[in-house]
Amino acid sequence: MAGTLEPIQKMVTELSHLPGIGQKSAQRLAYHILSMPLEEVRSLATALWQGRKAIRYCEVCGNYTDGERCAICSDEKRHNGQICVVRDPRDVAAVERMHEYQGLYHVLHGTLSPMDGVGPEDIRIKELLARLQDDSVAEVILATNPDIEGEATATYIARLIKPLGVRVTRIAHGVPVGSDLEYTDEVTLSKAMEGRREL
Amino acid sequence: MAGTLEPIQKMVTELSHLPGIGQKSAQRLAYHILSMPLEEVRSLATALWQGRKAIRYCEVCGNYTDGERCAICSDEKRHNGQICVVRDPRDVAAVERMHEYQGLYHVLHGTLSPMDGVGPEDIRIKELLARLQDDSVAEVILATNPDIEGEATATYIARLIKPLGVRVTRIAHGVPVGSDLEYTDEVTLSKAMEGRREL
Repeated sequence: MAGTLEPIQKMVTELSHLPGIGQKSAQRLAYHILSMPLEEVRSLATALWQGRKAIRYCEVCGNYTDGERCAICSDEKRHNGQICVVRDPRDVAAVERMHEYQGLYHVLHGTLSPMDGVGPEDIRIKELLARLQDDSVAEVILATNPDIEGEATATYIARLIKPLGVRVTRIAHGVPVGSDLEYTDEVTLSKAMEGRREL
Repeated sequence: MAGTLEPIQKMVTELSHLPGIGQKSAQRLAYHILSMPLEEVRSLATALWQGRKAIRYCEVCGNYTDGERCAICSDEKRHNGQICVVRDPRDVAAVERMHEYQGLYHVLHGTLSPMDGVGPEDIRIKELLARLQDDSVAEVILATNPDIEGEATATYIARLIKPLGVRVTRIAHGVPVGSDLEYTDEVTLSKAMEGRREL
């Protein structure tokens, strides 16, 4: 039976480990890959493996890079005194897509989560404090997610940084642009009220 | 910017070529793969490439195999005089999941489709006729899909085989088990009426 051929079974198993890909989709993908020309499968497999191998964390900010420092840390123009603190590299990508922020980043690679045993030592807080030792940093923008863990992490870091005399800010919470008040949850709405500004 | 690192971009591009995976999912998958341990990525990439390389078509029936003949063609017990004709190997897997059919298969690797320039020479009809040359085959079950192309292909093959004195059957069309008459399309319903049986 085709479904039990071991090489196919292996493909299905590996693919089904990926997020959002269940057994059925994995099977569909595996059969598709079997029908692809050898060359295309080689280039897919190579892109995944070479990509993973080429990418490491920037030694300064923890963002993805294929060198020692990421493109942002290497760019002198971005050393404007701001450091935006995010949970992981895909958050860097999200902020970059805005094409507005001109400063540096610091990637924590996680958020504090006592429930999951993630303490301050487990995320890159020490490294952030080290970056504040020279006087080049004027503002730390805490852009962790607006959920319980993100808030706790932001509060924790703010408390550590304030004594150093560095300005600490938190991204605003509020009603997402284009959304509908009617469907906005109360907590968000209350944050939006709280953060209202003079017009 | 992380999103434009060439190795990541390559991963995203390759992944987005897979069916059902758009730009967004490809990005999400790529980031996930970047966060996986090197060993796991190696085993994913290897499974895809080695799997694709190991699998070829059975020289008899056209099903997937990692040898010269597939497990079904190699199984003497399955040589019961029946050949089930399907469009592609995943249809073999579908019929096998039923755990009822005990005969052999013939995979056409396509269906007739004049619109797409697929003619009788482009699918494995010649190979099917060759298999009917000895007298071991008593029945050919046409199990191509119940769509226009599948029907046309079945009709075409039936017309070629009947003169050889081999029994030719077509799988039944009807209301799927567990479905609702109310939501069954008229063509299916009319086929179900047409194919009604004495109780």
